[in-house]
Amino acid sequence: MAAGIQPMIEKDVHRMAKIAALSGFPEWLPAERLVEQHVIDVFREVAELHGFSGIETRAVEPLEQMLRKGEIDKEVYVLRRLHAEDDADDAGSDRSRTLGLHFDLTVPLARYVLEHQNDLVFPLRRFQIQKVWRGERPQDGRFREFYQADLDVIGQDALPGHIEAEVAVVMAEILDRLPMPAFTIHANTRRLSEGFFRAIGLEDHTAVLRNLDKLPKIGADRVRELLLSEAGASPEQAQACLDFASIRTRDGSFAHQVRELGGTGEMVEQGIAELTAVLERVEDAVPGVILADLSIARGLDYYTGTVFETFVEGHESLGSICSGGRYDALAADNRHTYPGVGLSIGLSRLVSRLVSAGLAKPSRSVPTCVLVSVTDEEHRHLSDAAARALRGRGIPCEVAPSAAKFGKQIRYADRRGIPFIWFPGTEGEADQVKDIRSGHQAAADAHTWEPPAEDRAVRVLAVPGIDS
Amino acid sequence: MAAGIQPMIEKDVHRMAKIAALSGFPEWLPAERLVEQHVIDVFREVAELHGFSGIETRAVEPLEQMLRKGEIDKEVYVLRRLHAEDDADDAGSDRSRTLGLHFDLTVPLARYVLEHQNDLVFPLRRFQIQKVWRGERPQDGRFREFYQADLDVIGQDALPGHIEAEVAVVMAEILDRLPMPAFTIHANTRRLSEGFFRAIGLEDHTAVLRNLDKLPKIGADRVRELLLSEAGASPEQAQACLDFASIRTRDGSFAHQVRELGGTGEMVEQGIAELTAVLERVEDAVPGVILADLSIARGLDYYTGTVFETFVEGHESLGSICSGGRYDALAADNRHTYPGVGLSIGLSRLVSRLVSAGLAKPSRSVPTCVLVSVTDEEHRHLSDAAARALRGRGIPCEVAPSAAKFGKQIRYADRRGIPFIWFPGTEGEADQVKDIRSGHQAAADAHTWEPPAEDRAVRVLAVPGIDS
Repeated sequence: MAAGIQPMIEKDVHRMAKIAALSGFPEWLPAERLVEQHVIDVFREVAELHGFSGIETRAVEPLEQMLRKGEIDKEVYVLRRLHAEDDADDAGSDRSRTLGLHFDLTVPLARYVLEHQNDLVFPLRRFQIQKVWRGERPQDGRFREFYQADLDVIGQDALPGHIEAEVAVVMAEILDRLPMPAFTIHANTRRLSEGFFRAIGLEDHTAVLRNLDKLPKIGADRVRELLLSEAGASPEQAQACLDFASIRTRDGSFAHQVRELGGTGEMVEQGIAELTAVLERVEDAVPGVILADLSIARGLDYYTGTVFETFVEGHESLGSICSGGRYDALAADNRHTYPGVGLSIGLSRLVSRLVSAGLAKPSRSVPTCVLVSVTDEEHRHLSDAAARALRGRGIPCEVAPSAAKFGKQIRYADRRGIPFIWFPGTEGEADQVKDIRSGHQAAADAHTWEPPAEDRAVRVLAVPGIDS
Repeated sequence: MAAGIQPMIEKDVHRMAKIAALSGFPEWLPAERLVEQHVIDVFREVAELHGFSGIETRAVEPLEQMLRKGEIDKEVYVLRRLHAEDDADDAGSDRSRTLGLHFDLTVPLARYVLEHQNDLVFPLRRFQIQKVWRGERPQDGRFREFYQADLDVIGQDALPGHIEAEVAVVMAEILDRLPMPAFTIHANTRRLSEGFFRAIGLEDHTAVLRNLDKLPKIGADRVRELLLSEAGASPEQAQACLDFASIRTRDGSFAHQVRELGGTGEMVEQGIAELTAVLERVEDAVPGVILADLSIARGLDYYTGTVFETFVEGHESLGSICSGGRYDALAADNRHTYPGVGLSIGLSRLVSRLVSAGLAKPSRSVPTCVLVSVTDEEHRHLSDAAARALRGRGIPCEVAPSAAKFGKQIRYADRRGIPFIWFPGTEGEADQVKDIRSGHQAAADAHTWEPPAEDRAVRVLAVPGIDS
């Protein structure tokens, strides 16, 4: 047994003084985990159908690479080896050698692309589903450990504009297959917003965006005041901005409205073409989920093309469950620049809502489809043989742990939601299988019997709302 | 966009001063990750077929619960919020509030079982595949971050002995389906060893085990000296111990040899019955992989029943790739004791060897089965439509990122190992599909064409050795 992998079970570790949940570190029971696993499986399946490669990056990054901006300092967990004083490689104050847990999957992707650029092929289509950590204050009710699921296409020195629509299509297909209420992907483009503000004579488009971003929180009247006082807008310009930000269309008709408000020029037309292409391609793939929403201002300071936010009907309080966009330089070194288009799902937040609001439920709490009962310990080998025959054809089953009375064995299955119980014939008679839900029992052969297709594997289903 | 999940892309984060691999934190290229993902998939599939539930625990545990024994102090990574000075909940020296990254999945399982005991059903059949962290000295060449894959059955207050054989069967089936060379699961039981040493008059069986454990390193002669000097053995007793430790049988014949050496009494017979049951059930399920190996001494101080170690042919230097056994008290509180049987694969170590030694290879480097080419950007929608039709039938495909010359598009596919390229008919003529490997090209309909079954999804295959 290699020391590197030996289990560290200590005789005295099992009596734990205090056992308590840690605020911000969610943990699922087995049935709840089935929901999370299903969401992860759907994400991976759709991403792979579109030719995306799954990668994982190490959980840690050098602190100095994560901290290019003071404001995020607070959220990073820094690592220290417990007995690090004697090790030169764990410097206390030297940030270049200090490691922190990654707080998203974008900084690691940028580092991964640069580190492995000679071994990767571009455009790189990658998805990544991993936990990230943020040292949020627990009183804010935020997660300190959570899954993010990212989907990006990264080019080397160039990346065609149509990739923006493509990534949105993949994400729409993922979201469409998740067991959750209706969702809408809101899209905007930087060129459209910036071009419009410039077209009506507002050069400080960053200030305009910063103010429009506050619309949901403080409302139109207060934003109007800020546009006048901070963005140098005239009352007419401020009104045009507010009108622009109120445009929401399912199809390309936003273009007409933008032009009506005075949006002219090459940049606006470029933005219109970009956004229209995104709307058309997503509508084509998953009808009814994409929306041009020109109020989106967040992220337009670093995204350089299309930007996306996603809201779930009736659960707008979650905020955007899936956001992203185009960035012209995810990473760069002296030889290459790496532009990208990426979307990211806050997977744990979403799963937490699906579970806590009862929106998605597994069809049973364990993978087991059939509990094979045991008549008595002398005949356990018959139960093992039946189970092996069933498993050989992909039917998940387990053998009862003890030869208890059949009533107790049935309760074992019932408590776990296992739909079938199998009774091996001990004296040469035929085996029997019973559907615990209907009570129906019949003779069966473990080499040929099939459960109904919907009972074979656990399914995770959306629970219809009260009024639907 | 909720602050909790907003992407933290900073405009200035992409120029990274130093990009370097971190010693001990392995990271895979996309094609290598396919091998790791395959190993994880096989583990999960077999575990679920046997009715095991997948769970995940948080990555952190309170330091004081991980440190019940001084010797592991060194290996724990302790967390600190970067700006923690102002937070009462991040105490520096107060271990009761300090968090560390888990170094295995056993301590977390014990805590999970106690914390959620009222919401779990027992026996709990659970598997868990997660990364763990150990602050090993990098110069030792060990991993500091690696996957472990655990499989355990946990009972409440009681757990039948036959579970030991059952867990070994599940693990044997998992290992048997992995793309790797032949492996052998070595098994021993505590009662057999302890019973034998007592039967020949050696009461300090712990000292005997400790010395026998050194056999592979220092050899029989040095161990004999230690048995005389440290375990109080006579020359005859030392010889009996060495003879006992040399017993290795594929079937129950070890029992006869043990009795011949003087192994008598209830404890020895119990051990013989246990080990024979394990051998028989594993042999029944996966012939030729289980071996009674009475030299196994490691772990017998905390395992209380059967103990397992697993070695891969030609790769014994890896040490045991899968170890575990029975423990009578994984966890306990004032009301209940939780006995368990568990096995754990050092998954990253194994995958690292499979990859670096070229033992397992994916059939291609990306999930994509078909690259749909683009004639020109005006006809990209035809390529999108063909791709959608193929994906609708589960065939992974991607559309060429640019309408480059066909030769360049074929090279795009070739570099990634994509086996097929699709040419949409632009002027009403039929689509064509070309097998890049054979060069064979034919007319095809995206709504009906099927790739050969073996090309549909990426497969990960064992690469036969030179002499096999």
